[in-house]
Amino acid sequence: MECSLEMIGSLLVEAERMVITGHNHPDGDCLGSMLAIYDVLIGLGKDVTMLIDDEVPQAYDFLPGVRNIRRLGKELIDADLLVVLDASDSDRIVGVKEAVNAKIVNIDHHISNTKFADYWYIDSAAAATGEIIVQLIKLMKWPIIDDIAINLYTAIAADSGFFRYANTTSATLRLAADLVDCGATPHIISEYLDTKPLSSIATMLKVMETLEICNGGQLATITVLPETVEAGGESTEGLINYPRNISGVEIAIMFKIVDTDTTRVSFRSRNADVSKLALQFGGGGHIRAAGCTVDGAFTNTKQKVLSAAQKLLAELTV
Amino acid sequence: MECSLEMIGSLLVEAERMVITGHNHPDGDCLGSMLAIYDVLIGLGKDVTMLIDDEVPQAYDFLPGVRNIRRLGKELIDADLLVVLDASDSDRIVGVKEAVNAKIVNIDHHISNTKFADYWYIDSAAAATGEIIVQLIKLMKWPIIDDIAINLYTAIAADSGFFRYANTTSATLRLAADLVDCGATPHIISEYLDTKPLSSIATMLKVMETLEICNGGQLATITVLPETVEAGGESTEGLINYPRNISGVEIAIMFKIVDTDTTRVSFRSRNADVSKLALQFGGGGHIRAAGCTVDGAFTNTKQKVLSAAQKLLAELTV
Repeated sequence: MECSLEMIGSLLVEAERMVITGHNHPDGDCLGSMLAIYDVLIGLGKDVTMLIDDEVPQAYDFLPGVRNIRRLGKELIDADLLVVLDASDSDRIVGVKEAVNAKIVNIDHHISNTKFADYWYIDSAAAATGEIIVQLIKLMKWPIIDDIAINLYTAIAADSGFFRYANTTSATLRLAADLVDCGATPHIISEYLDTKPLSSIATMLKVMETLEICNGGQLATITVLPETVEAGGESTEGLINYPRNISGVEIAIMFKIVDTDTTRVSFRSRNADVSKLALQFGGGGHIRAAGCTVDGAFTNTKQKVLSAAQKLLAELTV
Repeated sequence: MECSLEMIGSLLVEAERMVITGHNHPDGDCLGSMLAIYDVLIGLGKDVTMLIDDEVPQAYDFLPGVRNIRRLGKELIDADLLVVLDASDSDRIVGVKEAVNAKIVNIDHHISNTKFADYWYIDSAAAATGEIIVQLIKLMKWPIIDDIAINLYTAIAADSGFFRYANTTSATLRLAADLVDCGATPHIISEYLDTKPLSSIATMLKVMETLEICNGGQLATITVLPETVEAGGESTEGLINYPRNISGVEIAIMFKIVDTDTTRVSFRSRNADVSKLALQFGGGGHIRAAGCTVDGAFTNTKQKVLSAAQKLLAELTV
């Protein structure tokens, strides 16, 4: 059932026993939102547990209260409500959903939300679930103390790429301003979020050595070899920004060789519609960020993908 | 004479012939502020020229109206006012000051401002001169059209590191929100600001190969060799963020070997007061960002600086 934010607030106030969760592979938005609403519900005297069916990445150790998030064990829990934050699909909370016997409330900002919950509030114009939680806490007239402000600022900053992504609106910036007034410290949060393990530098250097530029500088590719991924165990997600940010590059491609027969391909562009490229290879995405997984030997895949990209570039200049 | 922002507004409205300038090595804040106030003064029917005694970096080609900024030639100009933006010292506008015969109005946010002008407004709490210009244009009741919004958003985003630096206040974020409402597009501006020449990647890779970690991971250094600087001609300014952002690193140091007898040293830290380090070698700076220039052979310099840094780290853990 679709709810107003006021209705969601009432549901939380009326319930006694609640479990709060977020999606697997939790990120800053998911964790910051969970911790903020947890603080409020504990303040209201509720019996609340935070559970995730996954590890909380060490990068978020700085979030106030993060140690209170428990990893899902084998217990079964009866509760009044299971509050699911920032998850657009029940596939992303499978374990917790099975372990918790309760009505589900879902607060989310993904346009792809499948409306799987018993009660949901989805605002796809919000840059982050954290944006919705700020509004909810204001509606509930609960004071935003500094710990809550830090968690929510992290949520919003993480999902908007520190106010750099296309989802950043004036509302995003105003809510962030309110959180700074409540005690969030932008420079300290950004320092924590920017901190990376030493091994990620080795990974970045290895991957950037594979940089190739073609089509008169319009096309840039990088390649992640299987041994690079295994050695570092690092996320290679942000690396495509290096070729993407090179002056003159219209399309950036990252090839990630998963095994001898599988390559994951990511596309970024300035203007070209790379979702078309991804679609040709059975993938999908957005106009300027898309991806696909291609079967077959890497050299073949690379050739096919490059020639499709060159065709797209040729269309662009017509 | 110290002025209120209202007085500055009146001076601009009363003058007829004006020259607008900013500091040498112009950056996003300086250029965006110049272009925004230029639009307003042209709208008011004034005779206005933008002059800089330097090249405008190509990275700012996207700023609306940037082609109207002229490079200082040999002409002498008589004007009612020389409007100096984002320059804290007359040393930074020497050429223009000599070429323009006019009273000087200075609008700036640097705490180190020397109050060199005839009329000045300095707000060191502002993250950027662009923040002050937004307030000034609002005071002048001039409409902030999208071109002005883009220029001022760029000014604020550039000087606050996209709202990541310690100078970011809630006022910064609220003014940025107002500019988004007036037509500034955060993701397009951030894309332009993040664009770098291909050669900067080669420079980054060469410098990062020199990464050394010592003191159990608390101290990280990188070294810029003379040939690296000459080959790329690139700014190496941002590179110290790589070692600084490594998990566990307390002090990051960048050695830039200028010649066989001179090394420029930059320090960054999480908690340690690196201005103390810089002071020991005749430099200065802030608690968490400082620098100095050391005479003598590089190997000697490196040894001395590292042992001073290790001493500081030892004090920290006491």
